[in-house]
Parts: sequence; structure tokens; C-alpha cells
Amino acid sequence: MNEQLRRAPSPDLLPRFTAIVGDKYAITDPVALEPFLVEGRGLYHGRSSMLLRPGSVGEVQAILKLANETKTPLVPQGGNTGLVGGQIPFDGELILSLTRLDKIREVDPASNAMTCEAGVVLAKAQEAAAAVDRLFPLSLGAEGSCTIGGNLSTNAGGTGAVAYGIARDLVLGLEVVLANGRMMNLLSKLKKNNTGYDLRHIFVGAEGTLGIITAAAVKLFPRPRAVETAFIAVPSPATAVKLLNLAQARVGGTVTSFELIVRDVVEFAIKHAHGVRDPLASRHPWYVLMEVSSQHRDGLRESVEQLLTDGSAQGFVEDATIASSLDQAKALWHMRHVLPEVQKPEGGSIKADVSVPVAAVPQFLEEASAAAKAIIPGCRPVPFGHLGDGNVHFNVSQPIGADTAQFLARWGQVNDAVNKIVLKYNGSISAEHGIGKLKRDSLPKVKDPVALELMRGLKRMLDPNGILNPGKVL
Amino acid sequence: MNEQLRRAPSPDLLPRFTAIVGDKYAITDPVALEPFLVEGRGLYHGRSSMLLRPGSVGEVQAILKLANETKTPLVPQGGNTGLVGGQIPFDGELILSLTRLDKIREVDPASNAMTCEAGVVLAKAQEAAAAVDRLFPLSLGAEGSCTIGGNLSTNAGGTGAVAYGIARDLVLGLEVVLANGRMMNLLSKLKKNNTGYDLRHIFVGAEGTLGIITAAAVKLFPRPRAVETAFIAVPSPATAVKLLNLAQARVGGTVTSFELIVRDVVEFAIKHAHGVRDPLASRHPWYVLMEVSSQHRDGLRESVEQLLTDGSAQGFVEDATIASSLDQAKALWHMRHVLPEVQKPEGGSIKADVSVPVAAVPQFLEEASAAAKAIIPGCRPVPFGHLGDGNVHFNVSQPIGADTAQFLARWGQVNDAVNKIVLKYNGSISAEHGIGKLKRDSLPKVKDPVALELMRGLKRMLDPNGILNPGKVL
Repeated sequence: MNEQLRRAPSPDLLPRFTAIVGDKYAITDPVALEPFLVEGRGLYHGRSSMLLRPGSVGEVQAILKLANETKTPLVPQGGNTGLVGGQIPFDGELILSLTRLDKIREVDPASNAMTCEAGVVLAKAQEAAAAVDRLFPLSLGAEGSCTIGGNLSTNAGGTGAVAYGIARDLVLGLEVVLANGRMMNLLSKLKKNNTGYDLRHIFVGAEGTLGIITAAAVKLFPRPRAVETAFIAVPSPATAVKLLNLAQARVGGTVTSFELIVRDVVEFAIKHAHGVRDPLASRHPWYVLMEVSSQHRDGLRESVEQLLTDGSAQGFVEDATIASSLDQAKALWHMRHVLPEVQKPEGGSIKADVSVPVAAVPQFLEEASAAAKAIIPGCRPVPFGHLGDGNVHFNVSQPIGADTAQFLARWGQVNDAVNKIVLKYNGSISAEHGIGKLKRDSLPKVKDPVALELMRGLKRMLDPNGILNPGKVL
Repeated sequence: MNEQLRRAPSPDLLPRFTAIVGDKYAITDPVALEPFLVEGRGLYHGRSSMLLRPGSVGEVQAILKLANETKTPLVPQGGNTGLVGGQIPFDGELILSLTRLDKIREVDPASNAMTCEAGVVLAKAQEAAAAVDRLFPLSLGAEGSCTIGGNLSTNAGGTGAVAYGIARDLVLGLEVVLANGRMMNLLSKLKKNNTGYDLRHIFVGAEGTLGIITAAAVKLFPRPRAVETAFIAVPSPATAVKLLNLAQARVGGTVTSFELIVRDVVEFAIKHAHGVRDPLASRHPWYVLMEVSSQHRDGLRESVEQLLTDGSAQGFVEDATIASSLDQAKALWHMRHVLPEVQKPEGGSIKADVSVPVAAVPQFLEEASAAAKAIIPGCRPVPFGHLGDGNVHFNVSQPIGADTAQFLARWGQVNDAVNKIVLKYNGSISAEHGIGKLKRDSLPKVKDPVALELMRGLKRMLDPNGILNPGKVL
């Protein structure tokens, strides 16, 4: 049998799955299937003979029950925006799409809670919160198409995590269908509930390998009444850390974003992205894009100005601009958001999504850049990311004029060197993207062996027939 | 064999345990043992022939390895301040005290992280954070004697949870010794780490039944620069919820405490506690003790005043006072802290530590009070607690002049009625105290059966010989 299809169901099973969801929602036409087989950047291309689109939790249960009884592997999929291949059926598995479970079951502003089904698109969840004057703070590039179920299964991060936490931190309750088709109702809106073991966090971030999240109760927050956005030139990552600490300690509001950006990638943006201009008059080696929010309408701008004055006096700030309108703030964020894109015209890019303790970011950046340059002289490290979380996207662009294929062939070598430095600082080789297929083989090298054994035990207990997203994570 | 001693080790094993920690730290003298066998209120009294006080993680590992091989049950214990009997050896088990593991291994203010061993007393952890100008926000009545290991094992709540979260939310990393003696190192200081399943939350809140937490990396926060404390008379719990929402939406800082208190228990405090005076000129049915914090020195008081003015205009506030000095703030908190104590002189008290979604607190209070009064005419419900978390200590004092024993004999009946209302609002029968022994028999009645089965699966997987705190939780 074709290696790519070794997990494909036997054809006589397909009608039984079709019968659960109905013909209309059991997609087998190759053209209709195609968009669900490739991920956005075209890095992964899977194969599958059928995509199932259940319209209710009961249908999800029936699908899993049948899959479990017949040992038919499934790959769960939300908005298909994952970056590590977790949502792709590499070996002919059936695809279980959760996108029809798209009801917002309840919005409870007084309790600051909202219950969404797995297929609710993140932007819709944000809108539902805003409609009752609340904030659902999870925010990331793919928010127009990614889903709550995918966000939770991959434990998404994003730009608001420094203040509001990652996806895991936003979960109050979960509804999960287990491999055997049984539904576990942990859908509590409670902030405090000490009745036995916390089972939610087993499923959050498990990338669909332990159970299928069908709904979640998530936290809402008051909407900020004042927001200030500043673009700040800093002499070095070390001073950026000091500025972060000063901002968190002294500003009259909450630091809701704190993004570190190297000059080189700002130049890429100015050169390649439409409508991006250098925000400051002269060049500086590093920048911080900071957003501060407050529930109080007045005084936030003055507070940010004071912070910049104090930061300047202490040598943390070389120059800065505070957006004086919503449009100016949007322009600054636009520059931040194009950073992944503007690396493309510069040729090949070797990427790493890593985190280290915040205080170790400066040393990490120095050593990782040196290591990359030692392996590939002339290469251009262009790190940027969520300094407030210690989460750096350590991307390396090829040397000017180099052969792209030759450069990309050294991805593994550069990654190994970077990961070695990550581990030296007790960091993580996957800060916010997950393990999926991309980093599966690296996991045993970095994970505590006792933890890895416990992970395998959980997998055996919860999915004894190995039907849930096989070949991912473990 | 005596029922109370059915889990006691055979006497010939004791020297083998003693050999691990040394004579000095293997306590067998009944007088020396006594303080470790009773809990603070005298509700539980256990039995044990030996208390082990390991001085290193290696010794903990050796103890567990031997216990596992010889099927010797152990009860882990921190500061012995738990309220549900989780730390008490009811059946002659050995006691594993973690109090000698009391090193603060690292304080890293720039990364906002601190690594403490399990036996570090909570107040010491708070002091270590303050010493580097940071806040460790976990705060509860027992902080002078409870330990970090116990706080995490019981997932403690406390008065700061509305802003900073419960113990679970403060954990970055964990070090756990498993039942077989193997040590699992999850001691990361990272805020983002998506490398496989999250195993930390299996152990947090598991009350020592799945593994022994020996150390934890916890989150630190900037220390507030301004704090305002207000004592506010409100017409009803419903208006208190509205005031909470208004405060969270509009105040120029963070609502770091929001405690709802009924008038009757304030009267108990005025009557029985030393130095407590009525903070307001006239009587009101309900009060809120609110604390608001900010990183900005200026403007917070004005913002709180504005909130109270707005709240008054909307009918949420009948009267209020803002503490004008640290001493006044302390006096208000003193009144809050004596509330558990001042119920004693009023006779018997039937207690419930429950939570419901914040918006449901008013209906819950009304129905639970009516239910208690229907069962015991003349009884006096004196609810108070953390409204910001939906967490109410629903305590009921006996009717004036009633027979205390007769009253307390109806504890189960009152609790059943209260729990029924809790469940109607999808609440929790144990918000912050845990299950321990006290609520073990109630758990199957309130827990989703699939979740309960998964809990039992975890217990079997992690503690196949049942040596870890047997008879607790499950």
C-alpha cells in the first residue's frame, strides 16, 4: 500500500461515515477536498478520501464512535491555519472538520464569560464580545479564518498574551468528545472550581490527539476605554527588557503589547510593503512597538509620555513616537503585521518560533545570531516578536545574492544550533505554534523523558486505538 | 485490624524509611506527632506512626520509591492548613512533610518569575518577591503558615484572585516526584511553551493524590504604586454585581479585590471582634469591600471617587467610604479577615464554600437563604466572599438560642439543599477549598460521569499501587 495512504479507511467504511452527516457534508470530490489538504504557505500537502462536516456534537460523537470501533484514523481541522502541519492528513486519514459547529451558545457579560462552539471563527468571537461591550483578547494574524477549536487545540498565543495570557489562560470550561465517542461536559463558566482534577488542560494544546474539543466557555474582559500605541527606538534588546519592566511597573494602565523588532526587518517592510514608512526620523538598531490600555479615559497619554521621558533619562529610549490618531496606530500595527510577509522578497528564510525567559532574550539573540552567521556567513538574522512573553520569531534571511535552495538546505543545521541555545536558557523550541508534524521528531530531544513517558501514557489511555490525529505531537 | 490503621505500614518497614531521612527527621514520638495529626479547627484527627521530613528532592524520591515497592500509603503535608481534611492521615498512613524543602531557588524579577520549593511558606514567598520590587499576589488567611506546595496542590484562591487568578494561574513550571519515585522536571519559567501536552495542571489541585510537587516556578507581577480601599454600602447583591462590572470597566486601575458582605456578619464582627467599628454612619443590607490598584501613583483616588459618584447616580451605591490612610485600609481588611472567627460566638455554623457564575450570585443567595430558612426556621445565613470570582462562603449561623448540636446535625440536609441550588446554576460545590475527605462522597453526585472516569484513569495510571493520599478526592 502507498505509504501516504496507510492510514486511509477501507472504502466500504465511507458510506457508514457518510450516513452520519449526510451526503452534502461528506466531501469526496477531489477538487472540493483540495483546499483542506494544503496549508496556507504550501509547505504541506496531504491526502484524504473524505472530509466530514458534522453539524452537531451528536454527529461528532457518532463519527468518533464509528472511527474508534473500526480503527479509522481522523485528522481534526478548524480554519486550517496551523503552522506546523497538525491539521493536515498526511497518510490518507479522514478529515473531521469542525467548522459547522459555529454557534455562539451564550454571551454572559455580567459573568465575563462566553460559550462558543469549536467552529466559531476567532474574529466572530471577538465581535460577539464587543457587541456586549467586552473584550475577547485573543488576537493573531489568522483571526479572520482560524477557529476557537483550533486556537484552543494549539494553545494559540498572539499579540495580547503579555496582558491577557495565551489561549489556555482564557479557558473557563470545555466540552470534549473522547475517542470512544463519549462526551465530557466540563463547560463551566466558573472562575473557581476545585472539584477534582483539572481535565481541561489535558486537551488544550494537545492538537487534537487526545480528544475533540467541541465547545468552550472563555473569559471576557472589560473593553479598554483608552489605548496608546508607541513606536520606540531602543539601543539594544537588553534595554528593551529594562523598558518593559519599567513600563509594567510604572505606566498608568496595562501593557497589552510589547513587540521587539530589529532594524533590518523594518527596512524590509519599508522596501517591500505598500504604505510603510519609517516611523522615526533616523535609524536605530532596535525598536519596540508598545500598546498600553486603560479602563480610564483620561491620563494615559501623559503617563506614556512620562514613561518615555523616564526611559530616555535612563538610557533605555533613543527616540519615540506616540500615535496621535487611530490611523497612525493602525499604520504602526500594519508594519508589525507585514513582517512575516516582507521577508519573502529577500529570498529564503529559515524560521524558528522559540521562547526563553524574558531576561534571557538579549543573550539568546546575541548567541543565536552569532551561531547562524557562523554556519552561513553573510546570512541576515531578522528576529522580532513578543518580548513581553519571551517569545521571539528568530528568522534568518539568506545572504544577499545567495542560492535560495542551498540556503534552505541548511534549515536543520541552523535550527539545531538555535535550539541548542534555546535549551541552554531553559527555553522552548515551540513557543506558540505547537509540535504538529514539523517538530515531532525534535520533541524527544528536548522533553524531559519522564514527561514524555507520561504524555505517551495519556495518549494510550485516551486514544487506545490511535485514531486521533496519528503521527502528530507524539 | 483497627479500621483507622488499615493503611498503616508494617512496623518492620519503618527503619527503612528512617534510613532515608535520618533519625532526626523520622518523627515517631506521639507527642511530637500530635500537631501533624489534627487540623486547625479540630474537625479532623488522624493517626500515624511516623512523619518523614525529607531534606532534599532526592530523599522524596527515595521515600516514594520505597513506598511504592512496599505499597505503603503516604499522606503529603505542607503547612497543615487545609480545610477539607486532605492533609490528615485518617487510616494510619505515613505522613510525608515537605516543610524542609524550603529554599527559594531563584528570584528573576526581569522575567517576572520565582522558583520556590514546596515547603516555602506563602508569606516568605511574598516577601521574597517584595524584596525585588515585585508582587506574588496569592494571598489568603493562612499565608503565615501554609506552603507553596500545599497552595498548588489545593489550587488555593484567596482575595487577589479576581485580578491575578487562583494558584493554578500563577504556575509557570513544576517539579513533581511521581509515585514510582521518578522526578519529572517541568520547571520552566516560560510564559509560552507549546511542546506537547500540558502536564502541570494534572498535579495542581490534585491534593497530592497523583504526585508530589517538590518545587514550582511561579509568576511575579509589578508591585502596585497606588492602592485604594473602599467600603461601599449597596442595596443588594444584584447591584453589587452591577457595581463590579462598572468598576472593572471604568476605574483607572485594576480591581484587585471585590468582597461582598452581608450586614448580619458585619454586626457579628462589631459585636465580637476587638477593634471593629461600623465603617459607615447608618446600617445597610449589603456591603462591598473593594480594593483597586494601579501602577501609576496619581489619579487613582479621583477615579474611585468618580466610580462611586457614577455608581450612586445609577442606584448601585447607598453610601461609601474610601480609606484615607494605610491604617484605615488595614482596619477595613481586619474586619473582612475576622468574619470566619466572629461566627463562633453566635453558636453553630453550617458552612459551604461554593461558586456560581458571577451573574447568578444574586439568585443563588436568595434561593439558598430561603432553602436554609425553610429547613431550619430562624437560622441566620451570613454569606460573604469573593464576588469577583462568583465564590461565596455561604455560611449559616444557628437560630438565636437554639441547641447547637441539634442545629449542626442538619449540616448534611442544609448542604444538600444548597448544593442543589449551586448545581442549578452550574456552580461548584467546592470553589477554593478542594475535595479532600470532606467532600469525597459528594463528588460523584456532581461531577460529569465521563470526567469522573477519566479522573479514575489518571489515578490508576499515575498511582497504580494507590500509595498517594488514599481516600482523598476519589
